Amino acid sequence: MPKVSQDYLEAQRAELLEGARRCFAAYGYEEATVVRLEEATGRSRGAIFHHFPTKLDLFLAVLERDAEREAARWASGSVADVLAGLAAEDPDWASVVIEQSRRRRTDPSFRRRWSRRTDLVRTALRALVARERTAARLAPAIPDEVAARFISVVGDGLLLQRAILGEVPHAREVIDLAAGALGQDQGAVTPRG
Amino acid sequence: MPKVSQDYLEAQRAELLEGARRCFAAYGYEEATVVRLEEATGRSRGAIFHHFPTKLDLFLAVLERDAEREAARWASGSVADVLAGLAAEDPDWASVVIEQSRRRRTDPSFRRRWSRRTDLVRTALRALVARERTAARLAPAIPDEVAARFISVVGDGLLLQRAILGEVPHAREVIDLAAGALGQDQGAVTPRG
Repeated sequence: MPKVSQDYLEAQRAELLEGARRCFAAYGYEEATVVRLEEATGRSRGAIFHHFPTKLDLFLAVLERDAEREAARWASGSVADVLAGLAAEDPDWASVVIEQSRRRRTDPSFRRRWSRRTDLVRTALRALVARERTAARLAPAIPDEVAARFISVVGDGLLLQRAILGEVPHAREVIDLAAGALGQDQGAVTPRG
Repeated sequence: MPKVSQDYLEAQRAELLEGARRCFAAYGYEEATVVRLEEATGRSRGAIFHHFPTKLDLFLAVLERDAEREAARWASGSVADVLAGLAAEDPDWASVVIEQSRRRRTDPSFRRRWSRRTDLVRTALRALVARERTAARLAPAIPDEVAARFISVVGDGLLLQRAILGEVPHAREVIDLAAGALGQDQGAVTPRG
């Protein structure tokens, strides 16, 4: 038997996860049946579940691959680029991610398994904030953790509206407002009256 | 038989919807079974489904009542007050609303039935923006519809994080940043470089 290269295996895995992502996006997590996953990935159930023992494992692997892509994009772009990426996410996939996200709070074992994604995104977000700080695009009065939280709140809002509306009206202007807010000292950390 | 007053009927309806809201929040939409709805509302299934032919009708009625409350709150508060209200929403209920919201995009009949809530919120949001404009707390360069969209994106982000995390870290600072962004001219509507 020919020796299968690592690259080949990784390409195969990427292809499988891409098909699974499309399937989850098209049918939602619950309705992504084994038969549909077979169709979307072009693999037998044996081949799929050899690598991912359960549908949840497969879903989490897709999510993690997504987070890696996201983190890579965030490694060089600006706040506006990051937010624009979320506003342009596949609406169906955004829906699935959002519908599952609640389980993070209500299901501790799921939260642990979701944590690799959370860690990747958190690290990328922290690096983004540090970069903006160095470039003096972040007002000195705004602490790092507030800036990171603000970006993630706006990002989640864009992702949710993408899932609900398909197209977020005025997305670019909204993103510019958000990015601009971080650059201006506006007494954000002083107590409100 | 005694004549039942309109007030009494409305109080009964409010009580029923409050119980249903708790039940949906505790179990999610799918798992809110008839038996559980009976327990949570203290009403028989006959009494519940006399007023609301299906579970979906009941859910939409809860949603609409919620939107009325929201709109009432928005009728006098500031942008920061509105956002703070969303960040303080019951996390379980926020989850249910979010999980169902995808259906707005994917199910036209559901979208039509959800529209009363959308209309209430949209009108309240428009009034809020007009009030901020009159009070000169909205930068002249920011068009009304951009301001409204920005508020709704940040609000949805807070609601989603409330559903995921339970508590949104630095919520007040994030809200102050968002409210401040609307007050400052930062070239939000000029093209990005």
